[in-house]
Amino acid sequence: MKDSRMRIITTGGTFDKQYDAITGELTFRSSQLPRLLLEARCTLETHLVGPVAVDSLVMTEEQRNEIARECSQSPENMVVVIHGTDTMIATATIVARTLGPGDQHVVVFTGAMIPYSLEGSDAAFNLGSAMTAAQVLTPGVYICMSGRVFTWDDCVKNKTKGIFETLT
Amino acid sequence: MKDSRMRIITTGGTFDKQYDAITGELTFRSSQLPRLLLEARCTLETHLVGPVAVDSLVMTEEQRNEIARECSQSPENMVVVIHGTDTMIATATIVARTLGPGDQHVVVFTGAMIPYSLEGSDAAFNLGSAMTAAQVLTPGVYICMSGRVFTWDDCVKNKTKGIFETLT
Amino acid sequence: MKDSRMRIITTGGTFDKQYDAITGELTFRSSQLPRLLLEARCTLETHLVGPVAVDSLVMTEEQRNEIARECSQSPENMVVVIHGTDTMIATATIVARTLGPGDQHVVVFTGAMIPYSLEGSDAAFNLGSAMTAAQVLTPGVYICMSGRVFTWDDCVKNKTKGIFETLT
Amino acid sequence: MKDSRMRIITTGGTFDKQYDAITGELTFRSSQLPRLLLEARCTLETHLVGPVAVDSLVMTEEQRNEIARECSQSPENMVVVIHGTDTMIATATIVARTLGPGDQHVVVFTGAMIPYSLEGSDAAFNLGSAMTAAQVLTPGVYICMSGRVFTWDDCVKNKTKGIFETLT
Repeated sequence: MKDSRMRIITTGGTFDKQYDAITGELTFRSSQLPRLLLEARCTLETHLVGPVAVDSLVMTEEQRNEIARECSQSPENMVVVIHGTDTMIATATIVARTLGPGDQHVVVFTGAMIPYSLEGSDAAFNLGSAMTAAQVLTPGVYICMSGRVFTWDDCVKNKTKGIFETLT
Repeated sequence: MKDSRMRIITTGGTFDKQYDAITGELTFRSSQLPRLLLEARCTLETHLVGPVAVDSLVMTEEQRNEIARECSQSPENMVVVIHGTDTMIATATIVARTLGPGDQHVVVFTGAMIPYSLEGSDAAFNLGSAMTAAQVLTPGVYICMSGRVFTWDDCVKNKTKGIFETLT
Repeated sequence: MKDSRMRIITTGGTFDKQYDAITGELTFRSSQLPRLLLEARCTLETHLVGPVAVDSLVMTEEQRNEIARECSQSPENMVVVIHGTDTMIATATIVARTLGPGDQHVVVFTGAMIPYSLEGSDAAFNLGSAMTAAQVLTPGVYICMSGRVFTWDDCVKNKTKGIFETLT
Repeated sequence: MKDSRMRIITTGGTFDKQYDAITGELTFRSSQLPRLLLEARCTLETHLVGPVAVDSLVMTEEQRNEIARECSQSPENMVVVIHGTDTMIATATIVARTLGPGDQHVVVFTGAMIPYSLEGSDAAFNLGSAMTAAQVLTPGVYICMSGRVFTWDDCVKNKTKGIFETLT
């Protein structure tokens, strides 16, 4: 039977941006994940790690590799990655290539189009989506966005509409 | 391949309660679901029906049967039921018994401990969870609460802690 | 010149109600005032006291007298009273009668039609209104509701519309 | 007796910024004022005008003069100006010089350190403060920020702390 431990890897991105009243900028401070998990009344045992906290447009290849290592070496098989939407698929691709055949990890990427700390955010919905997908799906790398579940190799961000779609 | 149409059945419950400034009571007005689906930027084709809007503590057997009929006769195989948490499992049990063997519906119940219109609500997270479970799971009746996925016959509400747990 | 110290007396009322996820009721826990003053970035020196925390419909005469004593004995001349809207004027009347002629206190009552912890609340606006009125007005007893400033003896709650109006 | 009509002049600034999910920027769309006045259950007759919608750091001298003309020519004596905090005092100074001696307008500037559409915003509190000050104060030009009331010529923004203070 599946265990109830999950690794959540935060990497920055819109999901976790917060407004800085002094500078007037949206920046990364402490992750919103602990608060969100509390509000969700989540009883899964979650292990939260934050190797990187950047806007995904400036994420380096080395940082993507670091995220991939975090996934492949995770003691928990269920892994959720919170990631900026602009290059989420690029990192998911590297993760998919890092996990060898027969790897037992279920890695689900998600993010947000509007930060969790702003009204009208999609962050809580998306996290619920990704954490459920990680519990139910078979090993592999997935994207949970726009209320849907995609495999990493059949997903693209439609930047005009602000949604994720299948390639086909 | 799975289609992308989903039925969402709202039945009232804490999830959809709103504060009435004149009476000072939490009541049911129009469902919050359309707004929540918009904020979630959901691209699934959803069909929203609301046969019942009551506090689940006062839900009648006839109302539970009506919800079960809505599930079993749904043209969409993927069904999410928004339900009050206090008797969610009672209704899920009736739904499970109404769906005959070989039925192809995936019915996922969810609700909220705090209304969507209040701060700190678990509603958006739970909806994301249930809508994802409905897309990914095999036919059957499930409960998505507390960040977890339960089968209808192995789930109980811990009323002291305000969470859902397995029976065992 | 006027000093910058203000007494804020919380008495319960809709303003400070919070949702209890376990019971599903709106109840009084710790006051929302400290959080609200922080968010308002308020630099006034405020002294917060909470002699009473009840729904104003069940407030006793003795409790109203206690609030009046808190006002008349306040070392700070500027006093804001957070009060349930249903009997706010009854208490304001007792406060006005308790403060003798020549009393230097400026006492401003306010409250909320929707609790601060719910979306769409008027609580923050009303607090800003009352705290400003207390700094600017001459000694006396006032009501700040519905975006307006009333004297205690020319104000009535229109329970149908959920607003405060002049008597005339 | 004072009338109950008020002019509210929006000029952009942090107060009215909203997050654009597509660009990831905080921008100006329609003003939040109508919604805020509704939530405040405000019964004053307000006349809302928006001659300018810019970040106050890029506001031109001509735009400040336009705001000053809006104030001096306002048919309503009570005027509230929603303005970016960084150069609020510069515009208030021009307004004060434009209003000749004996002018009957009460002009109150306010703004926000955190946009109204973000959690933890000071916007609603500040608007309540400014609208009350405009009703109660004698003719002149004022700043309502940080829970206090300042005259235009005795106020400075402390950019490190994100608060407004007296000069002395």
